[in-house]
Parts: sequence; C-alpha cells; structure tokens
Amino acid sequence: MGDPVVAVAVAIVFVSATIAMAASSQYSHHPLDPLTATEITAVRAAVLASPLVPARPLFFHYVGLDEPDKPDVLSYAYGAADSAATSSQMTLPRRAFVIARAGGQSHEFTVDIAADNASVLSHAVHRGPGFPMFTDEDQIAAMALPYTYPPFVESVRRRGLDVGEVGCGVLSRGWFGGEQPAYGGARVAKMKCVVVDYNATANIYARPVEGVVMVVDLDQMAIIEYRDRAVFTVPKAEGTDYRADKVGTPFTGPAASPGVVVQPEGRGLHVHGHLRRVLYRGFVSEIFVPYMDPEEEWYFHTFTDAGEYGLGALASQLQRGADCPANAVYMDGYYAGSDGKPVKAEDVICLFERYAGDVAWRHTNGIGLGGLFSEVRPDVTLVVRMVVTVGNYDYTLDWEFKTVGSIKIVVSLSGILEMKAINYTHVDQIREDTHGTLITENTIGVYHDHFVTYHLDLDIDGTRNSFIKNNIVPKRNTGVRATGGAPTPRRSYWTVLYEVAETEVEGQVNINRAPADLLFVNPSKKTKIGNEVGYRLIPTGATATSLLADDDYPERRASYTKKQVWVTPYNKSEKWASGLYAEQSTGDDNLAAWSKRNRSIKDEDIVLWYTVGLHHVPYQEDFPVMPTISGALEVRPSNFFERNPLIRTKPPGNSPNCSKKIIFAGKALTVTLLNNNSR
Amino acid sequence: MGDPVVAVAVAIVFVSATIAMAASSQYSHHPLDPLTATEITAVRAAVLASPLVPARPLFFHYVGLDEPDKPDVLSYAYGAADSAATSSQMTLPRRAFVIARAGGQSHEFTVDIAADNASVLSHAVHRGPGFPMFTDEDQIAAMALPYTYPPFVESVRRRGLDVGEVGCGVLSRGWFGGEQPAYGGARVAKMKCVVVDYNATANIYARPVEGVVMVVDLDQMAIIEYRDRAVFTVPKAEGTDYRADKVGTPFTGPAASPGVVVQPEGRGLHVHGHLRRVLYRGFVSEIFVPYMDPEEEWYFHTFTDAGEYGLGALASQLQRGADCPANAVYMDGYYAGSDGKPVKAEDVICLFERYAGDVAWRHTNGIGLGGLFSEVRPDVTLVVRMVVTVGNYDYTLDWEFKTVGSIKIVVSLSGILEMKAINYTHVDQIREDTHGTLITENTIGVYHDHFVTYHLDLDIDGTRNSFIKNNIVPKRNTGVRATGGAPTPRRSYWTVLYEVAETEVEGQVNINRAPADLLFVNPSKKTKIGNEVGYRLIPTGATATSLLADDDYPERRASYTKKQVWVTPYNKSEKWASGLYAEQSTGDDNLAAWSKRNRSIKDEDIVLWYTVGLHHVPYQEDFPVMPTISGALEVRPSNFFERNPLIRTKPPGNSPNCSKKIIFAGKALTVTLLNNNSR
Repeated sequence: MGDPVVAVAVAIVFVSATIAMAASSQYSHHPLDPLTATEITAVRAAVLASPLVPARPLFFHYVGLDEPDKPDVLSYAYGAADSAATSSQMTLPRRAFVIARAGGQSHEFTVDIAADNASVLSHAVHRGPGFPMFTDEDQIAAMALPYTYPPFVESVRRRGLDVGEVGCGVLSRGWFGGEQPAYGGARVAKMKCVVVDYNATANIYARPVEGVVMVVDLDQMAIIEYRDRAVFTVPKAEGTDYRADKVGTPFTGPAASPGVVVQPEGRGLHVHGHLRRVLYRGFVSEIFVPYMDPEEEWYFHTFTDAGEYGLGALASQLQRGADCPANAVYMDGYYAGSDGKPVKAEDVICLFERYAGDVAWRHTNGIGLGGLFSEVRPDVTLVVRMVVTVGNYDYTLDWEFKTVGSIKIVVSLSGILEMKAINYTHVDQIREDTHGTLITENTIGVYHDHFVTYHLDLDIDGTRNSFIKNNIVPKRNTGVRATGGAPTPRRSYWTVLYEVAETEVEGQVNINRAPADLLFVNPSKKTKIGNEVGYRLIPTGATATSLLADDDYPERRASYTKKQVWVTPYNKSEKWASGLYAEQSTGDDNLAAWSKRNRSIKDEDIVLWYTVGLHHVPYQEDFPVMPTISGALEVRPSNFFERNPLIRTKPPGNSPNCSKKIIFAGKALTVTLLNNNSR
Repeated sequence: MGDPVVAVAVAIVFVSATIAMAASSQYSHHPLDPLTATEITAVRAAVLASPLVPARPLFFHYVGLDEPDKPDVLSYAYGAADSAATSSQMTLPRRAFVIARAGGQSHEFTVDIAADNASVLSHAVHRGPGFPMFTDEDQIAAMALPYTYPPFVESVRRRGLDVGEVGCGVLSRGWFGGEQPAYGGARVAKMKCVVVDYNATANIYARPVEGVVMVVDLDQMAIIEYRDRAVFTVPKAEGTDYRADKVGTPFTGPAASPGVVVQPEGRGLHVHGHLRRVLYRGFVSEIFVPYMDPEEEWYFHTFTDAGEYGLGALASQLQRGADCPANAVYMDGYYAGSDGKPVKAEDVICLFERYAGDVAWRHTNGIGLGGLFSEVRPDVTLVVRMVVTVGNYDYTLDWEFKTVGSIKIVVSLSGILEMKAINYTHVDQIREDTHGTLITENTIGVYHDHFVTYHLDLDIDGTRNSFIKNNIVPKRNTGVRATGGAPTPRRSYWTVLYEVAETEVEGQVNINRAPADLLFVNPSKKTKIGNEVGYRLIPTGATATSLLADDDYPERRASYTKKQVWVTPYNKSEKWASGLYAEQSTGDDNLAAWSKRNRSIKDEDIVLWYTVGLHHVPYQEDFPVMPTISGALEVRPSNFFERNPLIRTKPPGNSPNCSKKIIFAGKALTVTLLNNNSR
C-alpha cells in the first residue's frame, strides 16, 4: 500500500499526540512521537526543580510534546527540498509543553528534554479567560466533598436515601458571561449526583438525584454554593443494568455464532511502493455536546469534552475480541497524572485489517459483445481504533486506511444517555416540553447534539495546497454547440464550476446548502494529462450543524459548529477548536475567532477542519445502553493517481497453494481459500 | 433475532421478485415466492395456446408473479385478525403476469397456474405510451444489423477500422415529446458503437466510435436512421484493461494477505423469539441515470435501468470468495427468456454474516464512582446481496439486517464509466465545456447522476401506519419554567415539533432542507410508557436530488427524483417508480403522477419511496474501472422496542469450551476464541 501507509503513520502520531505508544526495541523515533514514560518523568523533575514557580502544591494538567516546527519535521522526514539533508544528518529539538496549576494560576512551561538533564526553557502565566482541563484528582477530591456537607446529607435524607448510596460527579459549568456568578475568577465547576448501588445496577446515570446542584471551587476544593430546588422521584434500578452477569438468561443475539477473521498468509500491513504525502497530521480536536434543556439544573450542560475532560486520559482499555476483532494488534500508551508521574494506559489503541465482505472494484462483462467474464477485487481496510469514554458517552474513533488511497474517519457513539429524573411514568401525563423523550418510567433522555471536530492537516504531494469548490450548477441547454453538432431537444443539464477559495471566509462551507465536490489540490502538481492532483472530501451522514442562537453563550464558545467545513492556513498554535483553555472559555480563542482574520488559503499550507454533527433525539432503544450510531467523512484520491491504483491487485484465491497452515490463538489450523474461479 | 428475520424473509422475496430462488425440498412455499422454472414453463404453454393473441412471432418481455392481494397474503402469513384462519387452512390464487409483444402491440396476460393446466384468465392490449423492457434477444439481434449496413461499414472504413473489430449496443432513446421523430409509434432505440478487441483490452467502453448514432426499429429489426457526424480519435487500448492476466505483474494490494471469516460455532442465522412485522416488502424500484452532455450523440442518455433493461435478468453470477466472503451461502434464480422458457441464473444471491469489527454497543464505567469495568458487544450483520450489471455499471445491492433491528440498505457502484471520445490529449487544450473530465488521453468521463429508488412497504406492527416528521426546531429561552425552576442565562435550545403527514404532499421531503427525524409509526400501538412504536429513516450519505429543469423531458419522466422521500398509500399497481412501461415513458405513469392525487397517508397502509442520489463527477481514479462508492439508508427501531434489544446478548469469548472444531472449505480445523476477559 502506498499513501495509506503514509497516512497510517500520521494517524498513529495522532492518537499518540494524547496517548504515547510503547516503543518496540527496533522502533526508530519520529519527531512527532509522543513523550515516553522516561521523558514524562524528566519533565516532572525539571518543572518541580525550577525556581520560576515556587508555589506549592503544583498540579500538572497537561504534559505533551511541544512539537518541532513543521518545516523541520518535513526536512527530517523527507529531506530538505533545497538540500541533501537527510534524517540521519538532522537533529531536532525535543521539547515538552506543560500546563500546571499552582498558587491559583495557570502556568505554562516549555521543557527541553533533548539534553541528559531536562530543563525549563520558558515559563509564562496564562492571564486570559478559561482554565486547563480537569485532572482525575480534581474530580476524585471533589466527589468526596458532599458526603460531609450537611445540606447535602439533609437533601439525601429528604429523599429517603442513605448518604452512602449516592455519588456526585464534576460537571463543567460552561460560560454565561456576566449572567453567571464569577466567584472572583476562581476555578469552579458544578456537581450533580446519582444513586450509586452496583448491587442494584451498574447504570448510575439512570438514577439521578434530580433537583440538587452544587458549585465547587476546585482550587480551594470546597463546596461554595448549594441548591436543592425540588424533590423528584428517583427512577428505579430494575431493568437499567447492562452487565452480562446481571441481565440474566436467556441470552440472545450475535454471540450465538461468533465470527473470526483469520489471515492464512499473515498480516498484510507492510509498506510497498514509494510514498507520497497526503496528511501531515489528523486528530480529533474537540467534541462539543450541548444539551437542549434550558432548566436550572441543565442549562449549563454544554460540554467541550476534549478541552474540559481530555480525550487521551479517558481512552478506554480495549476489550480483546470485543472492541477489536481477533486479528487486531494492540498498543499501550502513557500520560502524565496530576502529580506529573507517567500513567500507563494499556491496550488503548488497536490496529486491524478489516475484511467486511466489501468489494474494492468489480465488473462483469456482458455476453452482448462476446466474452462473458467477471473481474472482482475484494476490499480490505486497515483500521486504527481508539475508544474514548467521557463519563456516560463512549466514542469509538476509527481511522480507516483503504487500499484505494482513501482515508475514512468514523466516529461511533455508544454508552449511556444523560438522563433526567421526572415524576411522569407515562407519556399521556406530559403536558409541557420536557426537553427530551420519556424513555422509561420517571426518566427523560434529554435532547442534545454531538459535534466532533477533526483537525486534518492535509499536505497533498507537498505543503502548499488550495481548497477547490467544484460547484455543481444547473444549466439551460442553449443549443450552442462547441463541437458543431445539431441542436437537441434536451433542455437542461448540470456542469461543474471551478472555484478556488482565496481566503478563510471562502473556505467555510455548509455542505447541506448546495451540491459541490470539495477538493484539496496541489496547484503545482498535475497528472500527465493536466489535472491538478488532489483529494476530495466525501461526507458520509451526520451532517448536522448547530441550531443555537449566535448570541447564546455556548454558541459563542463553539461558533465553528455552524458549518461543517473550515479551512485555515497552518498555524502551530491552532490545534484545539475551542482553544487551549476550553474550560469556561469565552470564545475569544477558538477556530471561528482565528478565522476572523480571513487569511489567505490559496496555495498555502492549509488545514481542513471538519465537524461530524448529530442531533440526538433519544428513543427507548437508547436505554439502558445506546446501540451504536455513527457518522463519518472520507478523503478520497481525486486525480491524485493517474488511474485506479487497484487495477493491478491480484484476484483472490489464485495462490498456487490454496491450503495454508496458520497459527491462530496459539493453535495451528489449516484454512483453504476458495478459488473464486472454481465453481 | 426477531424482526430482522421477518425482514430477511421479506428481502429474499424482494430479490426473488425478479429472480426466483431455487426451492429446497423442505422449503414451504410463500404466496410471494417468485415463479419456479416449472411454473414459467406452464405460463409459456398457456399463453402460446391461448386463442386471444394469434399473432406470431410472440416475444415474452416480462413474466412474473401476479401477487395475491396483500390482505390475503397477510391472513395467510399471520392468520386473519378477525378469525382463527391459519396458513394451513388457506389456499391463495397462484397467478402470473405476462407482458408480450406480438403484431406490433404490447399484450398483457394474467395466467392461472394454481390448476394442473395453467390457463389464461385475462388479456389486454396496452394502448398508452411506453414499451416493455428490452429483451436479450432484442439487443442481440439489433447488434447484428450494423455489420451488413453499408453506411456503417463505410463509417468504420473512414476511421481506418475493420468492421470485424467493432460492436454496437442498444441504448434506450429516452423521450423528448414532439421534438423527437415518432416513427409512427414504432418501438425504436438508438445504437452506438465501440471497438471490440478482447486481445487488446476487455474495456470496450474505453474505445467509443464517437460521432456515429443509429436508430433501430426493434419490432421490424431494421436500422431506420443513420448519422455519422464527425470523426473523433478512437482512444488507445493501452492501459485500459483490468483483467488480472492482462494488467501484468507486479501485483499489489489486498490479495497479499487474504482475510477469511470463520464461524467456529457454525452459522448464526436462525429465527429466535417471536416475530413482529416491520417490512412487507422492499425492492429496488428504479435506477435513473441521466448524463449531463446535451450534445447530439449524448443528450438522450437518460436511462431508467430497471424499466428499460431489467435488473433481475441482469443479475451477475457472484464470484465466490470475491463478491461475497468465504462464509456466504448462494442462491440460484430463474427468469423467462423472450421465448418464454425458464433461464437459470446461478449464484445470483448470496447471504452472509458480516463480522466487520464493529461494536453493537459498549460502555466503560469510570473509576470515579468505583467499579471500573467495560461491557462490550460486537456487532454482526446478516447481509443479503445481489449484483446487477447494467451494461457498463455494476450495482452491488445489499440488504443488511442488524441484530439491533435495523435494516440498512446499501447500493455500491463500480464498473466502468461511460466514456466519450474526444480529440484532446491534455487539459490545457480544452477551452469549452466538455461535459465531463478528461480522464485519459482522448477520453472524457461524462458527468452524470445515479438515482436509485427503493420501494419500502413498511408495516410497523401492522398494516396501518403514519408518517411522522419530528421537526427539530430552534427555540428562544423565554425563562418561563413549567417545572418552577429559576430563570437561566441560556438563550436558546432546540426542541421537537411532532407533525403527522396527512396527505401525500406532506409526505414529500427533501432531507437536506431542514433537520427532522422521519418516522413510520403505528398510531394504534404504543410502548408501555406510551410512545408510538415506530421505525425511523436514517439517510447515510448520497442525498443528491435531480438538478434537471422541471420542464425537461427526462425530468418529467423521473420527476420523483427532486425529493428523496415520498410516501404513498399502498396500491398493488404502484411498484415501478417510472411506470410499468418505462421504455420511452412520458411521465404520465410514475410515482409523481400517482402522488398528484394527494391521497391520505395518515393511519393507512403506506409505502416509503426513498431515492439514494449521487452526482458523479468522474476522476482519473475512476479509470479504467471505478473504485466502489456507496450510498445508503437505514430504517432503525425507534420506540419499537421497550429498550435496547441487545442488552441481553452474550459477551464474546465466554463459551465454556473456547476451542472449537469446525469444517471450513472442506477441511477440519480448530479455532480458539479469545476470551475478552483474558489478557
């Protein structure tokens, strides 16, 4: 595989931008490799040893690679265009970027870790709005507070519950300008509670203690505001569990007949042929999840998952044979805890080849003109997968690399709904707008959106690219004939109007408005017959955009969700669509704010920002756990190759020896491939 | 599996509506089963023996089941609602519907085949516009004409070709009202030619003899009009072939590492649990493919594939291990040739269980509130597949039945572009609109659309359903609180406005216009908590609609392609979106025409018509064979079940004995399933 492999490398860099890969002994390092456990340890020592920030305690909120400048990385990887420099000759800086909280301030450090002794290169205090993401320790410490907070203990008693059977979670409070108390600029969050009784059910989200909301100061680690507005029925535990050992027999469904992919000739992943550049880096930049209930206890549910909670640290350990098929390989990762020490995350990435029974290309030649024959090539896809569980929601993030050269990016949503307790047990009792669906007795599945924003730094055969809108426009048939044919009775047709996006404003597209092929081309590279080499964007469902009012606070923070497509010139600092300090951010440092400069994007190093959007109206099937629903986009070679790159793939089942001995799950077995020509 | 199995049965009925299944000995017949070979033979005898149409020769253009009335089928299958009647007590009529051409007329017969001696029950002559679909014999006979037609022989010589190395194909001429010659109402088609030299290339479509167009009378079987406008360069054969033995080594790509799905515990397809009704019948009703070149030789390329060429008769023999994976089962079919005799179509349908590495549902419970654990259920899908090759294009038609109860309908397009010869060899030479992309030297891939229209007769828990538009509408937060909470700074949100479609006009939806969940509900069936049971439509990409002018002739014939969604009351005669006589149809008998009556669709037996649409701008990768591109829709249970139907599925890898002996491809082998709890 050619380009897909380039992209694979890129994607692994992506996932490891937040989760470090365990490096095998013969693995040669790449300048974008994430920090290793050893490096994280060195970074911690350097920061704690620095005299620049004496304040203690000091908590690490973010420890990541401070990536080298892109031109240096490219020279390293591909050799300098204007010199004979090769990777072996180059040494690049190796630096970390750290955000830590101490003395009630957010401190930024850059740390040099190339030398034997890591040392702090620079320090700054963040004085703008917003805060770094919550740490696990923030949340665990806050969760302990209510148990000894008398008003809460009383609220629990009022509901006939025991304080030992409730638990509370930290929820970002969003940002609502002057209409929300400032608490002197303290780092505050809200807390809401649920009944926690794992003997009764694993589904803690199904049993909210509705009506109670607290405000907690995360630096002082104290409850600073408390409200118990009204008592609502706590939904029953019965029928909410989803653990195999609790739901009881009879079992039904797929496990009745497991399918296993075996690869008699071994894995197919190996670089083959020369490589061309497609994608410098791609990653999930932000996940914005606004809920649509304006009530007191719910209006602030406007989560920016990546910026407030962090995706890498929330990567789930993949269940072998369940989250990924039997032929998958797994990778571990490392991230820094709030004490700065490396935390190992096991099996957080898997790679596998997918054989889904799809066809890469086919044609059956009809008998009409003689020669009845079929040529068929089955499809195979390399999938790189990471699952992130942000509280109740599970996001399966797939990067699919197809042999045709396409990169398909899929997000699959499962997990548990955010549920609101309500006193109704039947739809007929409901008169007002409950802002959600009654999904079981006393339980509303609240309306919400998911906006998953991808940062795709496409470099099509090089750094300087342009964004082309090939507008598909209807035409009236005038009868004028360039090629001199007779007039025809055809009255209309459509054609393609080529439009280059000059600046960022022209790079913003709502794909539901008008038909167009959207391409990223290299204007200085053409095919032999003169077409600009490019990749095009193919949205695949889930094209919802935000319906919030422009003047609403959550919308101002995530105003980029009004269009699926944004194109910006590459800027090292523009990575996180909701800004580096997304927690309580005000929208002054997000994708839309950057783009207001309306910079040139023609024949520049440009970045595609694409948002997969879903309006989620819950249904009873989403309870107690949601069946997976997916959204996707694809970038597909479009005049990138001279022709279909798979024409010279071998048909299946024609290997001289069709019977193969293989080792699968520690057992030797023989598999005979069916020959597609045999009947 | 519950409902999916109902739907499976339905889908098999679908495919066999055009292709008959070979019935196994213990297979009990269903009233919608297609005609068997024996029945087709009996129908032929009855028609030929009938004195009603003495004219000879008589050609059979359509021989299919004249299905019993739906209420009778339902009573047969489910027992009459108001009686104790069961299938065993009922006998239904068994009839065939035949369209034959004789004496220059289209004759319709209904034939009783329940009795030992099949007999004609009724006969009518079709006097409206349009003709039945072409037969293979029509096309093969017409193809022979040019070789002995002097003007054509001369045209071939003018181009320095030998008449023996060219071949011509029959193209429907569309309909252009009075602006096209009527030829006295004769059944005419156009013919265009290509260079056919299988030693040079299998890709006959890549080498058009551009400039030559003929008109052929298919009843007289004579060329009645001829035009050779201009000579264009015939594109070279080099680089156009796609046969494995011709493209040459080195081979690259997927076959390097074949993947095989094995099912250690055998196939999983078996009915389990009680059945509920979802889909009475679904099938591909029409495929409209208008090309966007108004030039003399191309303006009439406005194909209605199903109605003009027929999908069943064009079903391709599936290549085992290539078109379908190794774990597939295959079915044969039968259709009637133009002589009325049954033609066996081998391996035209396959069924397989797909294990693509997807997850049906999952959740990882965080450590926050104690109890870190994951529950994951892999997904498995039953796929029913048929591949139809209409000339150059290959349509893979998948019906996917998911264990969650969803039916996903996917059309995947591959095959070969329709190519136009042109004298340009480089993009820089082009000044005018060539109505396509220069995809190789002297070759234009012409712009076109694909509109694949599905007929989905949904019966959600019964016959009488309603179509609901749950409109997702933005709201201003007024601060008014039904539940008495305090005002909040949130300024906007969205909610759902429930709208019942009363009549057909309200059932027409362009899904790109405004966000809405579109549901088909049974207003007389509710869940325990009072939600209407339903299924909802989820479009999945490929949502293009026609851009042709309303007054253009091709648009009038397929005016239903301006909206993806139409809902009509069930009518036995409304099966083919472009009408029963689609060949040269005028639009007086199509979906849009039927719907003009604006019938009531509320609490009625309703049918969903959904069109998957693609605007196809060709790229060089589409040459010489197109990589597959897909469009899809899904109908998904939405308050149909009380809760997620997969909660009680068994996790994988927990079977007591994880090591299984299986027979695969004739060999015994042992597979050990990985236990997802084992590390």
